[in-house]
Amino acid sequence: MDLKKSINERAEQIGQALSAYLGRDDSDFAELLEAQRYSLFSGGKRIRPYLTLEFCKLFGGDERAALPYACAIEMIHTYSLIHDDLPCMDDDDMRRGKPSCHAKYGEATALLAGDALLTHAFGVCVGNPALSAEQNVHAAALLSEAAGNFGMIGGQAIDLDEQPESPSFERLLKLHSMKTGALIRAAVLMGCIAAGVGEDDPRYADAELYARRIGLTFQIVDDILDAREGESPEEKETFLTYMTEEESYAYARRLTDEAVAAVLGYEKGGMLVSFAEYLYGRSV
Amino acid sequence: MDLKKSINERAEQIGQALSAYLGRDDSDFAELLEAQRYSLFSGGKRIRPYLTLEFCKLFGGDERAALPYACAIEMIHTYSLIHDDLPCMDDDDMRRGKPSCHAKYGEATALLAGDALLTHAFGVCVGNPALSAEQNVHAAALLSEAAGNFGMIGGQAIDLDEQPESPSFERLLKLHSMKTGALIRAAVLMGCIAAGVGEDDPRYADAELYARRIGLTFQIVDDILDAREGESPEEKETFLTYMTEEESYAYARRLTDEAVAAVLGYEKGGMLVSFAEYLYGRSV
Repeated sequence: MDLKKSINERAEQIGQALSAYLGRDDSDFAELLEAQRYSLFSGGKRIRPYLTLEFCKLFGGDERAALPYACAIEMIHTYSLIHDDLPCMDDDDMRRGKPSCHAKYGEATALLAGDALLTHAFGVCVGNPALSAEQNVHAAALLSEAAGNFGMIGGQAIDLDEQPESPSFERLLKLHSMKTGALIRAAVLMGCIAAGVGEDDPRYADAELYARRIGLTFQIVDDILDAREGESPEEKETFLTYMTEEESYAYARRLTDEAVAAVLGYEKGGMLVSFAEYLYGRSV
Repeated sequence: MDLKKSINERAEQIGQALSAYLGRDDSDFAELLEAQRYSLFSGGKRIRPYLTLEFCKLFGGDERAALPYACAIEMIHTYSLIHDDLPCMDDDDMRRGKPSCHAKYGEATALLAGDALLTHAFGVCVGNPALSAEQNVHAAALLSEAAGNFGMIGGQAIDLDEQPESPSFERLLKLHSMKTGALIRAAVLMGCIAAGVGEDDPRYADAELYARRIGLTFQIVDDILDAREGESPEEKETFLTYMTEEESYAYARRLTDEAVAAVLGYEKGGMLVSFAEYLYGRSV
């Protein structure tokens, strides 16, 4: 199977599961629920939950057991986009070519829709019926850490600070490792947990290395693409503040090689090799 | 011991635990962390976590084991106040006589601070080291349900709808049972779980009844107090839309009697009897 087909099939599977989680209705607050479905089904590629399912499979787990974790990750990602787009944050009226959540439903509903997806994500995670309470607790702890102060939200806060006292390459790496890297890492590691691979298992370290390397590659490539399209404001710190485009490529190439090496030895690692190359290749 | 002393002692205990959870710092996003501490320590009475600890004790549990759950409840409550106060919601610049979170730290930081407290709450809950994974999963599931679409957030959404198609007393009861009742109920039931009292135990039903009755009493008394102080806008639906002040009192009295009856038979129920009477008595 080629990667595109694999991603599309997984996206279908994840979409169906998400639909079921958001299936309950209530006419007294129909719009709140509709806003969540709108943002969850606005054309995302389901990259993060894809990783959860693939890592579960890579290590011999039943992918269906990882599906609730995958959905929890996608709910967290979606909530973060809804809140990011709000006027007090990035103030974006459009997202993926469509009105953003608050542009369509108003700020109050968008705020609550984001809060609800974040809240629901943890319920879905701890309520995974296919796995043990120990696994569910571990997964939820990872998710909270990755999405919280010392993960995604802290990364957002660093990113909001437009005139940092001491900008540096190290700070930029920290920003990205928190803002986008942490959730990608959680997506991968929750796939490990679903397969019964815990921290003491050497395969866990391979998965974590893969996650860190593709997370950073993803961001470097984003910066290159944004710069080409003139989408980065002048004052915004990016990888291109610290290196040329050529150097950025070389850096992303090295990271991708390391990611590939981490999964190459596994029988079912082929799709994850393709996936790492695909993230790198977006800019070529 | 009298109730006031009991509440103050518990508030101290809970405050220390919350402090420890928010103890880690980072100079790259110090304000985000400071905003969370600011709102967590802005003079709340810690009513909800008090209930968690008291119900754990009531059923013979070790209260210290319930402390992480109590903190999780207070984090959720605090996040909800921060987001409620935002300009797109109630637009309140003051909270408990001090600037609200966004008035002090700006909207973006307040938004993220609320998100972070919500996220952290689940981490604290599933990471309770004193209890089993089964208990932690159960507690987190309760918390997610109580704080989510079909609990607090849905209640908020109903409350935002200022011109409902069909206002009714039933709808008002539903609003309050979701908006404020659900979290009070979760606070009580998480105390049960910490004491090893699960759904199949008849004591669980007593606790749930108590929670439902005091939750509603709390809201009725709030409505009476707001009306007296002229704080309810004319068009706002309250209990006084459907009954006179005298009838509201009688209703709250009946609810309080039922709450008291639910805990009166327990050896350590005295403080919870006083607590129910205190909630009722705020308006007398």
